Amino acid sequence: MTSALLTDLYQLNMMQTYLDHGETQRASFELFFRTLPPRRGFLIAAGLEQALDFLEDLRFSADDLDWLARSGRFSRSLLDYLAAFRFSGDVDAMPEGTAFFADEPVLRVSAPLPEAQYFETRLINILHFQSIIASKAARLVLAASGKLLVDFGLRRAHGAEAGLWAARASYLAGFAGTATTLAERLYGIPIYGTMAHSFVQAHDDEGVAFENFARSRPRNLTLLIDTYDTEAAAQKVVALAPRLRVLGIEIGAVRIDSGDLAVQAKRVRRILDAGGLAGTTIFVSGGLDEDKIRSMLANGAPIAGFGVGTSLTTSSDVPALDCAYKLQEYAGVARRKRSAGKATWPGRKQVWRHFGADGTMHGDVLSLIDDPIAGTPLLEPVMRDGRRLARPILSEIRATAARNLAALPEPLRRLEVGGRYPVQIADALIRLAAEVDRHTAPKRMREPADPRRS
Amino acid sequence: MTSALLTDLYQLNMMQTYLDHGETQRASFELFFRTLPPRRGFLIAAGLEQALDFLEDLRFSADDLDWLARSGRFSRSLLDYLAAFRFSGDVDAMPEGTAFFADEPVLRVSAPLPEAQYFETRLINILHFQSIIASKAARLVLAASGKLLVDFGLRRAHGAEAGLWAARASYLAGFAGTATTLAERLYGIPIYGTMAHSFVQAHDDEGVAFENFARSRPRNLTLLIDTYDTEAAAQKVVALAPRLRVLGIEIGAVRIDSGDLAVQAKRVRRILDAGGLAGTTIFVSGGLDEDKIRSMLANGAPIAGFGVGTSLTTSSDVPALDCAYKLQEYAGVARRKRSAGKATWPGRKQVWRHFGADGTMHGDVLSLIDDPIAGTPLLEPVMRDGRRLARPILSEIRATAARNLAALPEPLRRLEVGGRYPVQIADALIRLAAEVDRHTAPKRMREPADPRRS
Repeated sequence: MTSALLTDLYQLNMMQTYLDHGETQRASFELFFRTLPPRRGFLIAAGLEQALDFLEDLRFSADDLDWLARSGRFSRSLLDYLAAFRFSGDVDAMPEGTAFFADEPVLRVSAPLPEAQYFETRLINILHFQSIIASKAARLVLAASGKLLVDFGLRRAHGAEAGLWAARASYLAGFAGTATTLAERLYGIPIYGTMAHSFVQAHDDEGVAFENFARSRPRNLTLLIDTYDTEAAAQKVVALAPRLRVLGIEIGAVRIDSGDLAVQAKRVRRILDAGGLAGTTIFVSGGLDEDKIRSMLANGAPIAGFGVGTSLTTSSDVPALDCAYKLQEYAGVARRKRSAGKATWPGRKQVWRHFGADGTMHGDVLSLIDDPIAGTPLLEPVMRDGRRLARPILSEIRATAARNLAALPEPLRRLEVGGRYPVQIADALIRLAAEVDRHTAPKRMREPADPRRS
Repeated sequence: MTSALLTDLYQLNMMQTYLDHGETQRASFELFFRTLPPRRGFLIAAGLEQALDFLEDLRFSADDLDWLARSGRFSRSLLDYLAAFRFSGDVDAMPEGTAFFADEPVLRVSAPLPEAQYFETRLINILHFQSIIASKAARLVLAASGKLLVDFGLRRAHGAEAGLWAARASYLAGFAGTATTLAERLYGIPIYGTMAHSFVQAHDDEGVAFENFARSRPRNLTLLIDTYDTEAAAQKVVALAPRLRVLGIEIGAVRIDSGDLAVQAKRVRRILDAGGLAGTTIFVSGGLDEDKIRSMLANGAPIAGFGVGTSLTTSSDVPALDCAYKLQEYAGVARRKRSAGKATWPGRKQVWRHFGADGTMHGDVLSLIDDPIAGTPLLEPVMRDGRRLARPILSEIRATAARNLAALPEPLRRLEVGGRYPVQIADALIRLAAEVDRHTAPKRMREPADPRRS
């Protein structure tokens, strides 16, 4: 699955051509998101750790090389080049957890052209996915105002890697944890687990199901009460509690997974309170998203936590964004494409961020790396000559994301549709775009096309 | 990534409880999709091959077991059980490529309860994803009326497995191939590759870029012509063709990736025809979906093929469906849940399909496996006692899908929104649901809730 052949065939075709014609000078590619839809006022950078693992570890195995040779598509010179292929370049990137906006480079790769070219497909695959999930998770975190949020979405995520990385991306954005067991083992993310309806169904009596589970799994005990009749099940929980208390077992929570969750939660709260279980909290799940969570909390639903599945791990309202990895400089000369609707800003760039006195983000400036601009530069060196410079731990990344969410302007924190954050294009960049256009379009002189308008 | 720990923690919690209380009798779970949205009149089953690989191969490794032991969550009895864990049960399933509808079981697992329970999370993860992609691909195939379709979507797919499996699921549904190199190596799927904009940008002159590429990659040559000015680039292609012809190189196609693709294709077609390149076809890509493809073809756009990326590999308009794996029978007794809006039909079931004289699908009947019903049964035995019975090759699966698409009623083939296929619930099933309800809800007698209405 993580074979070096997990790439678009055209990367190998281009590499062959670059080698044939000696086009191996240094190239810089930048990865960015072209436009943000109305329901994504900001994005959260995520996946850099896995992207750097990929850059550092990528090798063409003997099997890969053998298969490529047998395919008859490539020359011996390319096969020899691939046999020795190691990433030898530099990477600058925004730290994971950073809030960012359209057209801002999240990552820049600078390396000999065939090398930098090769990495396009999988770098987008890694960074696009984790960033859309972290961004969706951040919206859920803002909507849940401090209530417990748990990722329940492995089953509907798009494959194994998506499920696992969604657990990571949501945790770094502020989720309390996940149901995905492997995420604790690999990343140290707290895991949560209750019971399924099948567990209750397998017993002839719902009360017996609850008691069996409580005796076997007494820690952080949560009982699922909506298999047949939610209120009747809540009564069974009340009846069971004294017997469990004798054994030193407390019913930490009940979970409701269907019906009108806010209404059910209020009714169940009354039953639990009347039954002396004021300390037993209510956890809900089932088709949740940030709008439903905000609405339930605004209506005073007595809910302590939310399990969020499909809408989180597929970012179901925005399952993909226009994320690209484009050549910005080759052999010391700035480049850009001018394709209709897809023009890019040329050159190696930096994003400078400005903050108000209270720490709130006021606006960004996009310019060239050597443009002397005030503000906090967002891209940092993370690899030099193929070696990593630092390896932040997940708790630090989580703290970075929390700081970034706290610094968002209020309209973005309130998830207002269309809340627009100012990103200014510096004069130096506009001048360079005009210069590049004169160079690459000698027959049709024109004003530099602003990629934001074209 | 394919660790046995890639599962919801609650599966392990339930397994512990089942073992503690001797609840290890035979259970049958069925996997089905609850409802179809208006833009999915039918679904195509896919992913069974990977699901059976998973069932057959799953082992808890020594590392997994060690980690579980150190977590302190589980008893020695569970750890010993997991150390010996092998799938020993039976599986019945619809062959991949079968068209199916809401509430119809796609797969049934029958095995001792803790075993059958364990597999829930990843079976959904595998079958839900590939089925939504095959279903999206089938829509694209119907819209493209025989034109070439190629999967370009690895970069925006949700991780590595999603990208690779999307190549497989789209090929089985009728795509010609994919850009994902690894898909040829692993599945024998034809691969396609052209060039990226970065390739053109890296050259000072677009014409030189074209010529270099043609000399290095002469087979199935496709040139990307929209980096700067599409019509000007088409003229360069015309100018280059005679020089290449001398070398025995034909320009098979040009690719346009931006702008109004139908308009651009018409203009480029005129330029190519006037330049003596009537045999050079036009291939387009960039934000395509089935609606855009159908509209371009309806408008007579001279387009021979389509590269489809994001909308395919994320099924972007329907990135997830309500796919569930539910207990239907335990210890010989039928079971069902009655949760509001999520009630299920109990018992082990079969789907019988009826065809008209011309082979068109007329309707399905959902009933119990031993109900003597006319029609073609869709679920077949695929594993017995943990062993696979057959292993269809991908070309057979592709033929099955093609037969199924050809047999769809016209409203579904035309992708009409709301086209509804009749699925009848047999009397035997309705009677059994009523009987199960009497058993599990003794205090509240009621008419059996129809899951389609609740």
